[in-house]
Amino acid sequence: MIKVFKIGGNIVDNPQVLEAFLQMYSMVKEDKILIHGGGKLASQLSEKLSLEVKMHNGRRITDSDTLDVALMTYGGLINKKIVATLQKLNVNAIGLSGADANVIKAVKRPVTDIDFGFVGDVTKVDAVMVKSFTDLGLSPVFCALTHDGNSQMLNTNADTIASEVASALAVLDKVELIYIFEKPGVLLDVNDNESVIENIDKNSFNVLKNKGVVDKGMLPKIENCLSAIDKGVKKVIISDISYLENNQNKHSTIQ
Amino acid sequence: MIKVFKIGGNIVDNPQVLEAFLQMYSMVKEDKILIHGGGKLASQLSEKLSLEVKMHNGRRITDSDTLDVALMTYGGLINKKIVATLQKLNVNAIGLSGADANVIKAVKRPVTDIDFGFVGDVTKVDAVMVKSFTDLGLSPVFCALTHDGNSQMLNTNADTIASEVASALAVLDKVELIYIFEKPGVLLDVNDNESVIENIDKNSFNVLKNKGVVDKGMLPKIENCLSAIDKGVKKVIISDISYLENNQNKHSTIQ
Repeated sequence: MIKVFKIGGNIVDNPQVLEAFLQMYSMVKEDKILIHGGGKLASQLSEKLSLEVKMHNGRRITDSDTLDVALMTYGGLINKKIVATLQKLNVNAIGLSGADANVIKAVKRPVTDIDFGFVGDVTKVDAVMVKSFTDLGLSPVFCALTHDGNSQMLNTNADTIASEVASALAVLDKVELIYIFEKPGVLLDVNDNESVIENIDKNSFNVLKNKGVVDKGMLPKIENCLSAIDKGVKKVIISDISYLENNQNKHSTIQ
Repeated sequence: MIKVFKIGGNIVDNPQVLEAFLQMYSMVKEDKILIHGGGKLASQLSEKLSLEVKMHNGRRITDSDTLDVALMTYGGLINKKIVATLQKLNVNAIGLSGADANVIKAVKRPVTDIDFGFVGDVTKVDAVMVKSFTDLGLSPVFCALTHDGNSQMLNTNADTIASEVASALAVLDKVELIYIFEKPGVLLDVNDNESVIENIDKNSFNVLKNKGVVDKGMLPKIENCLSAIDKGVKKVIISDISYLENNQNKHSTIQ
């Protein structure tokens, strides 16, 4: 059994919350993999360097300077700090980008009406290599960076990396995918943390989607989850950090 | 046989020279490991961020902000670009700091008359883990960062990391250590590139040292090399990038 966790910016941005998460994560007994996003650090560094943060429909455009900032913050600062903290907690963590050991290849997103720049769409995860690491007793920590095999690093959505890594590993082992974000789960009413939808499958998702009751930002996330289930992941959890404290808490299970 | 290469700032700082080096490095047939320094990028980023570069007797003092810069530039930007370039050249590179897979532990340098800050002196290299990576067909690329096992990353001299990694591996395999820097070797006359001292051992080094003919900056480098030989490394080469083009060129061999 392998558990694949993804943590978002709300955890990465706050050193105390990150430390609390890593403490709980270190207690997870199964083989485990962590994928982290970048949070605000990249934007903050871009600002300090007077780089313009370019957005298109709420999505960041990654030019060459912005990619360097991602390499520095996601690949360097955040990744190494997480790895060093996990080592303290007796987790033999190893930080990886997609280029390291060629574990995640991607293609630069094709230019349509808009050029997202150095953004990659995952094409291949080397699950056998990832499993070699867990078999060595190592716990991979992925940052949201991939490469194209032709020396170009690429910025890649961390949710997608989590889903792709979990799906690829599902061929080799039993896999659970756990998204930890700022809410206790998928909510019927985005302002009511008690309105967690506890179970979602393809059919109920279509009903929810057609009714328009699920927050629009959640739709691609849930589609990502359902795609992982299709590819053999046993179940996907969406919850906040309390899931690790006590997984009897309300949370969303997608399967 | 494992070849451990260390490249200095003069290579890392120049993208064309770095690419040329990596091209030649990719042709090395033996299992190989690369250790890279940081060059000027860290100082440049510190400057852009208006951080003061603190020096003591020509050695950088690493405060918390400077360490973050080292994590970003050595651990992120430079390391990932080298790894991605090697992947293009069909070398299955994996970027590592000392914290990753707990491969290099260090202690913060004790404060005497001066506090160097977050600078680490190597205490242990996990050669078995490094060998596990080469056995998987991977080619480790180390940046000059270690950790103390208690969540603190530490800035560490890249020459020392190379010597320590090579020495630790010498227990398991035949190891050669190759320092690539800006001169063709150890020079009798620092202004004459033809004056390469081709062979150095402990005795001849002591003679050279007592005569005061070797450049002072080279003394600790050669002592590092001799220490590696003492620990079982078969030979140490000091040369410039041309050593990889044609190792019939003049270079210094220490054994």
